[in-house]
Amino acid sequence: MSMRFMEGNEAIGWGAAAAGCDFFAGYPITPATTIYNTMLKILPPRGGICMQGEDEIASIGFCLGASMAGKKVMTATAGPGISLYSENISFAIGSEIPIVIVDVQRLGPSTGSATKASDGDIQFLRWGNSGGLPVIVLAPSDVRDCYVLTMHAFNLAEQYRCPVFLAANKEVSMTRETIDLDTLEPPPPITRKMAKPGTVFRPFGTQGDSLVPDFLPIGGETVVRQTSSTHGPEGYITTDASQIAVSQERLDRKLKSAVSAFSYYTAIEESRADTLVITYGVTARAARDVVEELNREASPVSLLDLKTLWPVPETLIRSMADPHQRIVVFEMNTGQYVREIERVLPGREIVFYGQMNGELIPPAKIKEVITNG
Amino acid sequence: MSMRFMEGNEAIGWGAAAAGCDFFAGYPITPATTIYNTMLKILPPRGGICMQGEDEIASIGFCLGASMAGKKVMTATAGPGISLYSENISFAIGSEIPIVIVDVQRLGPSTGSATKASDGDIQFLRWGNSGGLPVIVLAPSDVRDCYVLTMHAFNLAEQYRCPVFLAANKEVSMTRETIDLDTLEPPPPITRKMAKPGTVFRPFGTQGDSLVPDFLPIGGETVVRQTSSTHGPEGYITTDASQIAVSQERLDRKLKSAVSAFSYYTAIEESRADTLVITYGVTARAARDVVEELNREASPVSLLDLKTLWPVPETLIRSMADPHQRIVVFEMNTGQYVREIERVLPGREIVFYGQMNGELIPPAKIKEVITNG
Amino acid sequence: MSMRFMEGNEAIGWGAAAAGCDFFAGYPITPATTIYNTMLKILPPRGGICMQGEDEIASIGFCLGASMAGKKVMTATAGPGISLYSENISFAIGSEIPIVIVDVQRLGPSTGSATKASDGDIQFLRWGNSGGLPVIVLAPSDVRDCYVLTMHAFNLAEQYRCPVFLAANKEVSMTRETIDLDTLEPPPPITRKMAKPGTVFRPFGTQGDSLVPDFLPIGGETVVRQTSSTHGPEGYITTDASQIAVSQERLDRKLKSAVSAFSYYTAIEESRADTLVITYGVTARAARDVVEELNREASPVSLLDLKTLWPVPETLIRSMADPHQRIVVFEMNTGQYVREIERVLPGREIVFYGQMNGELIPPAKIKEVITNG
Amino acid sequence: MSMRFMEGNEAIGWGAAAAGCDFFAGYPITPATTIYNTMLKILPPRGGICMQGEDEIASIGFCLGASMAGKKVMTATAGPGISLYSENISFAIGSEIPIVIVDVQRLGPSTGSATKASDGDIQFLRWGNSGGLPVIVLAPSDVRDCYVLTMHAFNLAEQYRCPVFLAANKEVSMTRETIDLDTLEPPPPITRKMAKPGTVFRPFGTQGDSLVPDFLPIGGETVVRQTSSTHGPEGYITTDASQIAVSQERLDRKLKSAVSAFSYYTAIEESRADTLVITYGVTARAARDVVEELNREASPVSLLDLKTLWPVPETLIRSMADPHQRIVVFEMNTGQYVREIERVLPGREIVFYGQMNGELIPPAKIKEVITNG
Repeated sequence: MSMRFMEGNEAIGWGAAAAGCDFFAGYPITPATTIYNTMLKILPPRGGICMQGEDEIASIGFCLGASMAGKKVMTATAGPGISLYSENISFAIGSEIPIVIVDVQRLGPSTGSATKASDGDIQFLRWGNSGGLPVIVLAPSDVRDCYVLTMHAFNLAEQYRCPVFLAANKEVSMTRETIDLDTLEPPPPITRKMAKPGTVFRPFGTQGDSLVPDFLPIGGETVVRQTSSTHGPEGYITTDASQIAVSQERLDRKLKSAVSAFSYYTAIEESRADTLVITYGVTARAARDVVEELNREASPVSLLDLKTLWPVPETLIRSMADPHQRIVVFEMNTGQYVREIERVLPGREIVFYGQMNGELIPPAKIKEVITNG
Repeated sequence: MSMRFMEGNEAIGWGAAAAGCDFFAGYPITPATTIYNTMLKILPPRGGICMQGEDEIASIGFCLGASMAGKKVMTATAGPGISLYSENISFAIGSEIPIVIVDVQRLGPSTGSATKASDGDIQFLRWGNSGGLPVIVLAPSDVRDCYVLTMHAFNLAEQYRCPVFLAANKEVSMTRETIDLDTLEPPPPITRKMAKPGTVFRPFGTQGDSLVPDFLPIGGETVVRQTSSTHGPEGYITTDASQIAVSQERLDRKLKSAVSAFSYYTAIEESRADTLVITYGVTARAARDVVEELNREASPVSLLDLKTLWPVPETLIRSMADPHQRIVVFEMNTGQYVREIERVLPGREIVFYGQMNGELIPPAKIKEVITNG
Repeated sequence: MSMRFMEGNEAIGWGAAAAGCDFFAGYPITPATTIYNTMLKILPPRGGICMQGEDEIASIGFCLGASMAGKKVMTATAGPGISLYSENISFAIGSEIPIVIVDVQRLGPSTGSATKASDGDIQFLRWGNSGGLPVIVLAPSDVRDCYVLTMHAFNLAEQYRCPVFLAANKEVSMTRETIDLDTLEPPPPITRKMAKPGTVFRPFGTQGDSLVPDFLPIGGETVVRQTSSTHGPEGYITTDASQIAVSQERLDRKLKSAVSAFSYYTAIEESRADTLVITYGVTARAARDVVEELNREASPVSLLDLKTLWPVPETLIRSMADPHQRIVVFEMNTGQYVREIERVLPGREIVFYGQMNGELIPPAKIKEVITNG
Repeated sequence: MSMRFMEGNEAIGWGAAAAGCDFFAGYPITPATTIYNTMLKILPPRGGICMQGEDEIASIGFCLGASMAGKKVMTATAGPGISLYSENISFAIGSEIPIVIVDVQRLGPSTGSATKASDGDIQFLRWGNSGGLPVIVLAPSDVRDCYVLTMHAFNLAEQYRCPVFLAANKEVSMTRETIDLDTLEPPPPITRKMAKPGTVFRPFGTQGDSLVPDFLPIGGETVVRQTSSTHGPEGYITTDASQIAVSQERLDRKLKSAVSAFSYYTAIEESRADTLVITYGVTARAARDVVEELNREASPVSLLDLKTLWPVPETLIRSMADPHQRIVVFEMNTGQYVREIERVLPGREIVFYGQMNGELIPPAKIKEVITNG
């Protein structure tokens, strides 16, 4: 019996710890600060490090350095802080540095409303870096997700050596719920594949069919070259077009080709339903209630609650959408992820309801849109 | 006779001057630095201001302050610098501060290759801000475009009070060409609509059908309130959901509803063509040569060279695509704008060729893809 | 008739303008901010530049750059900001860049009390740079001094190409007084001696007996080399010991040998007096009242109100002290300038009263110390 | 037998470790960087923390935070970095935060010569803070001193809760010597006096005759108030003049009254000598050789090698100077500490030789000055 009463940010912290996180750095910002507070309680007593940088740029910089040295690292912020992470996110992508980045989304643009939620950063997380290579973004709906998806986020960062985002929002992160830790079925922790130390190490060279290079820490016995510039397998800077092309293609493919391995979701599949509701994050909770209610009322509706947003789980979306005639998408923004749904489901009737006013989308509105929208 | 031999960055500078730019601030970065150098020659002798900030954050900060004080402002950087602009881009969007931002795209991710080109920031420019509200992005193909589109960029920034990006890249910006300034047909400069000074000024209140508030400078006789947080028409901070919703909806609609007024492009419309090539930026030059060659060879092909990328000129794209069976998209990245083409043209056969290795897409490759791809 | 009612900070601004100041940069800090405000009113309408940097480091950096380009520059801050100026003060000393720096002293240490005065930075201004080469420090006692000494400060900075400090404090700077601008007898403005432009310019080479090199602006037709490292007359970096020795000796001597030319002070010389009171700054005002009162009461006392603090005007102090048996020194700190008095007047009876509690030293206390102390 | 071959910077690191240092933060700068490198080897394996900040400001900030939490902390830099420490040095003084700061002096002013030595920061270390309250400065002459004085520095920082500087220089710090650790007679480590945790803790309240408050860490069970502003015993901000006066007076007296307890020096006292040589740092080594040689040659000379420079050990200097008629002072600068000698020894014949050209003062020059100077 492990009943715990905690908010989403605390669950993210405990999930990180369960995944083996031993380094956290961040700069305070509402509504992400309690993640920092939680890590400060968890890490030092276990020999881990939790620190505040001079600003967001220093904080993510510390994380990347620690990750290159072999730590499992996490940072957390909100939209204005993700802005300041942007340059180092590009670095993490191009130089394949594992890191979990939590974005507790609040209402934007700019400083917006610090204590109000939105899902306004969904495309920002995908595209907020120079070059446009893919990243992984997971979206929790509740405290339980906060715990489990954080564990997945660490595993994915380690396996694919890339930044993995958790697109939380203020309502998920700062709502307190009871969860039973015994029922979570968390994944076993995965650690990046280590190279055999040796005299010659190719830090960006892959082995066999793998699209991800083996890892050795900087600062160890074997020399490990790292650079933020374009580089070949040995880690030397290069402007050779063919070498760069091979590298960019690998960075693109290593995530896009693997997405079916981590297309997390929950669903209600109603065989007689015409309509499939697609949503994510905190909105999925209200949507689930409404869909269950409609099904009880003999107005069958299906639901797809996406927990993996990027790379877009296209196969999952298509197969779920297939038996339905109408797709209804809800988002706490002015229309971001619906663009992907439209792209993936060409020619389908797609209804969108978005709202970015700092408030949750109420069940009544969801029901109304499903029924009449 | 005004024949001038200049590179794209110089043309951007002279276009800015012609548009009435009187303030520039930036931080040096290859391949954008010659824009700074050009402004340094142009502005001070005319009484304008050209300055280097302590870093990119200070530089765009100076621009926003100057714009709020009534200046026509521009800044220029490359991908790593756009990262550092992100927070203030959100501010400019939410607080409706006119600014022209030039991104001379270089090969990413991260510091990538400073002297190599790509179009790797096309989605980044659209989405690299918290909240996801729309921005305007124009893409020049040559030195002439650099001049003329910069003038349009200023006019749009002034008219719609928003950030307007120029998505240049290293090859467009640092190639020197002869242009005849007399043949450019530049647009007449437009200046933001001024409010009548008065005792009560509603800095975010609109008049009549207009979706854009009238402007008064900060620091003048009339008090002008500015904030980066969510606000109502008076400029006071608010968390009132209905007021925020009205404001966000207006910010969204003021650009999306207007895009047909600034859907810049050039085209070759070949009535017997099955294939329409869609591209933008420097790639459009090679594509034009190939299309013209194919048409001479009696293999008719059409071409759409988009100069307005965001908001997506959907009407233009649909009407151009309509008579064709096959769309071929070229980009100097791993597939960014093609996602929009797919979304806008559901069910159409779309062939994509992308390349992000620091080199131009050669005409032979374009011809091959059009013919066989 | 030019009666004006203004505070010391405003007088500093107007004095700067009268001296030809055409560039000001600073970062707000109590009690120096009204200097910035004043310059903002004065400079732009005259074509000058007044700007706020991202922080103190950027602000003084802008000043040094502008000065190297030929501007007459000033910045203003309080103790915590002087801390952040330190690195660039060293640069100005070693690379002979004219700049006027106002320190409106407030009570320290650290952030101390922002709205309380002290003279706690008197040694800090002298020694707050790496290397310990001399600087000039002037200390105003009232609004009139603020105006006139600022003019002197500019003239000295131009003549000797060095940083010149104005050691104001909160009480002098933020007290409002009426001054008659017609009676000020301000010095005529002096501008740094210009070199004749030519193909070869030795930026740190002196001419004839002069200890100060002629000036040419960076960015002009003639190449001007500048470096913050040790350099020879041509401006090239050097580690040659003899060349460095010559340069350091010149930097030392150019100020120390000239101090008699700018030993500003006022005095009351009472031939029958045993006691000489030495003080400076706002305390000199109360001291003057007390000394005049004592003289009226037939208890003759002399007064030396030093307005040049550094380099120590040793000749002046010795000649004033000579006919007296007893020296009484007052300072709004725990004993800073009294150390110089002790060093300069070995073997003399020296009484010190210091106070650093945020309050002015009251006349009654001054009288008591003079009489009994 | 513990013969070790190491440079001064390494000895500083090992001395710090022996003193109980468990936290180091710094930013690389020649010639201080090898201290950082040494701490990086020593601390983490013992559970200590060694980190690089984003810059010097962040680095000393981390140190102060760690010290307030109960760590024994050290940082190290050179002149340009001391400039950036200035603001936080004031904070450490006013808020009584123990910290050891190593200044490996290099030739200034400004960036000067990174690989050349000087003693150009001797007054800077004393006065480079706003308010002018005293600090402790120790100066090592050789590798042995580097070890032992670092231990003393920690003990003094802990005992008196203040910043303690080690005024090393490039020649002492980067010269490699053999030392026998068994013969060092290091002091036993001292740790700041802890308060008894209780419900009410007066963080700046002293007990009995002590001038130093007892300590409790921030972040523990008892609330500990800290501020960089003027404060009373409870740690609340105050502008009450009498409370401030009491506090400033205590900060002044706690160090000045104690200096005889830590007036470190070595001396050669020659009873028949007319001349006393006073010097410090690396110059003392050459001076010792010369003095010993002169004494062998029957030209008796005494030597005082000061290892405590600030607060000035006036009693020591006076008593050593007493039997001599002539004082000869050597410094690797243009005359800094000699000012204190002049002040402390009024009326004595004082000969000064200073040199600031990046080179050591050679024995022949020392002999010449002693004999003829």
